Order: sequence, then C-alpha cells, then structure tokens
Amino acid sequence: MTQPHSVAEIWRGNLLESRHDAHVVVADLSGIRAAWGDPEAMILPRSSCKMIQALPLMTSGAADAAGLTPRHLALSCASHSGADIHIDLVADWLAELGLAEDDFRCGAHMPRDKAVHDRLICAHQAPGQIHNNCSGKHSGFLTLNRHLKAGPDYVEIDHPVQQAVREVFCELTGADGETWGIDGCSAPNFACTISGLARAMAWFATAGQRSDTMSGAAGRLTRAMMAHPELVAGEDRACTDLMRAMDGRAAIKTGAEGVFVAILPDKGLGVAVKAVDGATRAAECAIAAVLVHLGVLPAGHPATRKYMTPVLTNCRGLDVGHMRPAPGFPA
Amino acid sequence: MTQPHSVAEIWRGNLLESRHDAHVVVADLSGIRAAWGDPEAMILPRSSCKMIQALPLMTSGAADAAGLTPRHLALSCASHSGADIHIDLVADWLAELGLAEDDFRCGAHMPRDKAVHDRLICAHQAPGQIHNNCSGKHSGFLTLNRHLKAGPDYVEIDHPVQQAVREVFCELTGADGETWGIDGCSAPNFACTISGLARAMAWFATAGQRSDTMSGAAGRLTRAMMAHPELVAGEDRACTDLMRAMDGRAAIKTGAEGVFVAILPDKGLGVAVKAVDGATRAAECAIAAVLVHLGVLPAGHPATRKYMTPVLTNCRGLDVGHMRPAPGFPA
Repeated sequence: MTQPHSVAEIWRGNLLESRHDAHVVVADLSGIRAAWGDPEAMILPRSSCKMIQALPLMTSGAADAAGLTPRHLALSCASHSGADIHIDLVADWLAELGLAEDDFRCGAHMPRDKAVHDRLICAHQAPGQIHNNCSGKHSGFLTLNRHLKAGPDYVEIDHPVQQAVREVFCELTGADGETWGIDGCSAPNFACTISGLARAMAWFATAGQRSDTMSGAAGRLTRAMMAHPELVAGEDRACTDLMRAMDGRAAIKTGAEGVFVAILPDKGLGVAVKAVDGATRAAECAIAAVLVHLGVLPAGHPATRKYMTPVLTNCRGLDVGHMRPAPGFPA
Repeated sequence: MTQPHSVAEIWRGNLLESRHDAHVVVADLSGIRAAWGDPEAMILPRSSCKMIQALPLMTSGAADAAGLTPRHLALSCASHSGADIHIDLVADWLAELGLAEDDFRCGAHMPRDKAVHDRLICAHQAPGQIHNNCSGKHSGFLTLNRHLKAGPDYVEIDHPVQQAVREVFCELTGADGETWGIDGCSAPNFACTISGLARAMAWFATAGQRSDTMSGAAGRLTRAMMAHPELVAGEDRACTDLMRAMDGRAAIKTGAEGVFVAILPDKGLGVAVKAVDGATRAAECAIAAVLVHLGVLPAGHPATRKYMTPVLTNCRGLDVGHMRPAPGFPA
C-alpha cells in the first residue's frame, strides 16, 4: 500500500511542531488525474458525501413534489452551523411537511453558531434535533420518506431511504456497500476508496454535459450549493469562505475526521482529501492547496490564506507560527 | 531518521477510519529504556514542561519567601480548566503578592470549565487573564519576578525569569536553548528531543534519591501535583482523571499539540509522548497505554477506558466505534 503523503505543516518559532499526512485524489470522468498517497485507501466520506445522499430525494420526484427550492437543496447537502438562517429554514421545511422535530432521527448537539449557542445556554435550554448540523440532510430524508410512504425509522440500514442512498453511492463511487459505519447523525455512512469519492465528484462536476435524470439532479444540487455557500456551512467556516472566494465556480464540502471534497464544473474535475489522522485543519489546508494548484481558488485571497497558510496567533494576539502546505504538495 | 510509530486507531463500524503516529520514550536516569518512533525527534514540550519552568521559582527561594503551599505549587505546574477552584486560588495568590490581573502577560481566553464559561457568556463578560489555563504558571513567574526585582515583562526571552527557566531546561533535557517558540501564553517554550524530555521526567521521578537543592525542589513539585490532581487540570480532564486512577503514584502532564509526559517515582522512570499530528486524543491514548504497560495504571479502571479505549458514541448515544492503541503498541 502506498503511504499517505505529507500535506500540511505547523511551524512555531523556528521548529516544525506538527505535520499531517493525507490521501488526495484529483479525478475526471475517465479516472485518476493526480494522486498523493494511496488512491485506493478505503475511507468513510462522512458528511462530504451529502450531495450523493441527497440524490434519491431528487430522482424520486420527492423534492419537486414538496416544492423544494435551491435553498432547501443546499441545506440538504449541508453541515450547517445551526445559525438562525439554518434552523429557521429547517423549521419551515418541517412545518411544510406536516412533521415535527421528534420525527428526526439525527439526535441533538449544541450548535456551532455562537449567537444561537449562547442564547440556548443563557436560556438554560438544551439544543434540539433541529440544531444538529445534519438537520438539513435529515429534512431531505424525511421528504423522501414521506414520498416513499415508508416507516419512521429512516436511518436504519435496511430502510428504503438508506437502501436508495446505498444504491446510488455504490454506483457513483464503485463501493460494494458492505463496509459502513454509523455517522454522528445516526445515518449509515458507506465506505469507498478515496479515488472512488473523487470520481463521484467528477461525475457531479460533469453533470451538465449529460441529460439523464440523475445527472440533472446532480447538477441542480451542485448549483444550489454554489449559489448558497452560507447554507452549506456558515459564517467563518471553510466551505462557506472558500466557496465565496471561488465566486460560485465550485462546490466544496467537508466531512468529519479530515475529509474534504470539491466539485469543479469548469474543469470537469472532482477532488477528494482524507487526512489520515482525521484533522480538520489538515483537510482544509490540503483542499485549499489543491484548489489553488488547479487554478480555481485565488492564491492571494484572504480566505485562501485563512485556511491554507494561516498565521497562528496566541492569547495576546502575537504571531507565534503558521500552517502551510508541506514541501512538494501539491506541486 | 526513524519514522514515528503508529500508536492509536479510530474505528467506526468495521473500518479503520483514522490513525495517529507518535514518538514515545521511556527513560531512566541512565538513558532510554524503551522507545517507539524517533527518540531524537526535536519537539516543543509546550505545557508538558511546566514543572521544569517552575523549578527556578523553588530554587531561588521565592516560593518559600512567598509562603506558597503545595496547592500553589500544583497550580504553578497546571494547565487548569479555569474552574472556580482554580481562579479563586489564582486571585488569592495575586492579592498576596500585592499584584493585579494586569500584571499577567499570559493573555485571556475563555475557560474550559463549563460553569465558569457559561457564567461569563450570560453576564456578557469577556474572560480575563486569570482564566487563562496558564495563570498558575504565570503566578509562579510573577512570584519569582518579585523575588528577583526584575522588570514587568517577565515573558521576554532575555528577561531573568525566562533565562532562569532556559538554564534549568537545558540542563535537564540536554537542549541548547537556541531553538524555541512563543507559547500560547506568550512565554518562551524551548525545544528539546523527546528522549531529553523523558530523561528530565526520570530526573524528577528520582528526585527523592538525591539531596541537592534542585532535586528537593523537583520532589516538592512532583508531590504537589500528585496530591492535587484536581488543580493540575480539572474535572473530566485526562491529567486529573488518570492521576486519580493511579492513586498519587504518578504525576502526568499534557501539552498542546499532542504532548504528554509522566513522572513515575515508584519506578524511577520518565515518559514522554509527542503525537506528530498534534492530536490530544492520540497523546492521551498513548500515555495511558504506556502507563498500563508499565504497571502503574490499572487496565480495567474506568479512567483508563475513557482515554485509552474509549467507545465513541454519537448524537443519539449510539455506540458507533472506538479508539484503541495501535497493534504492537506499546507491547
């Protein structure tokens, strides 16, 4: 097996303090265009594959039957911060479905958004399932589930909603669907190779070149993400900041444990990154470096510096070090 | 250079999702007893060397002149959670010195302790320097500084307080003092080899066998840490939980970017761990595994399971995976 490739370094003073390895693949529809590390490494894409998980919502006709807008579609692919802009839309969506928060199966966690977080704390309120960063994806699952008229436990592996996800995931990534884990939001998360994930993203990137139903669905999801970066993550988040920096020319998505993907319609390329240690900072640095390398993210943009070459400051605001792509990565 | 050794694995479902590499050394006074990875790797010990940074406070006579108790000494070696138990003691200490929070040079950050954190949020108050996890160490620096009658900027590299730290750090770790960074709390942090850090911890562990002033100081600091694990970190923290699990037979200390050390007086051994990717979870898993391996931490203790082999649960409380030491580590 090819060893993972060094992708990011953390320097403090004149010492290399920490470093991160990753598997990275750039693919087009015909296969691997560039790879660092082992392109056949098996990974769990986690939330990076939400646009794949949203495809059955589209191809089933459920999204249009429910009148979902591009904002709903962007949120169905999101790991949102639980800001008001996100939870208000989820609440409206649930109400339009005639469903309630209890119908979710994602569980609750404190939202990342500071305003909502602090409001809950000071009101002595526990967060609800609506605050879960996956509540948009689960709203999509509930929309599909209502359309399918299936049972309420839509996150079970043998439920029609998850079997529909499994089928399309395996088709696009080449996975066998036999290896999987339960995600933080209780949905099954199927394993695939890092090259399989990159190829699936290339398939999304080229959706506009095809006229089949599933490609049409992929194109709509991708355009929704690119049009609404604020819904895909939130303020001060890599997905949102970097998509804004690319002016709607790319859809990118983070996943837990150091995963990041990019869909590049202008180039017909897909990118997938997996930091082997699961570090988010490594995945952010690596995806930004690859996007600069491919010419879609401006090297001098403040958002690029923020995630690719951030200056590290301490409690007194002193410059104490920096992170940067490892020498030789990506070029 | 010897490659780092795989020390920890994160499993989800039936897939190895992420893994961590580290350099680990167990040393006695005569040298390396066991090593995984590269024992000569240069690292920044960060907060793991606070007991070294506290030695000049003791050997100068400043600690006794100020009437510091074992509780103060434990706090001077702490990365505390900013709970009331910590900030009240720091406030008293400052008052006894006739100094104020503005005399600190550590900067402010939100405390980790949830009660104090939430109290600040709901009172719309910014955290003070007293809440900084290093405010105990800085109280020690201020105590030494008053004794030395030196200038107020005690974190500058050429200040007598830091030069005293530099001298003892180099003596104990074998470092040259030329490579250093600025820590989160603005104090200089000198680089050393991982084996040098482990040897310094072995020197602390054997302090009771020697009668010189510096060894006496080291023994008092080690006993203070072992007697007051709640002051060295805080509730639900690895240092505190694991020291309690070892019933006062070891002093252990975490450092940022994946460092952990242990002082084992019963064995005359020192241990140092550096996760190359800087992950705290990896350092915690690795130090617990080494402590079990050395027979000082009970394998079946709940605290051991919590840090060495934790079950990973999701937002609905489902068991979704686990962390465990890598095969072949440490034995």
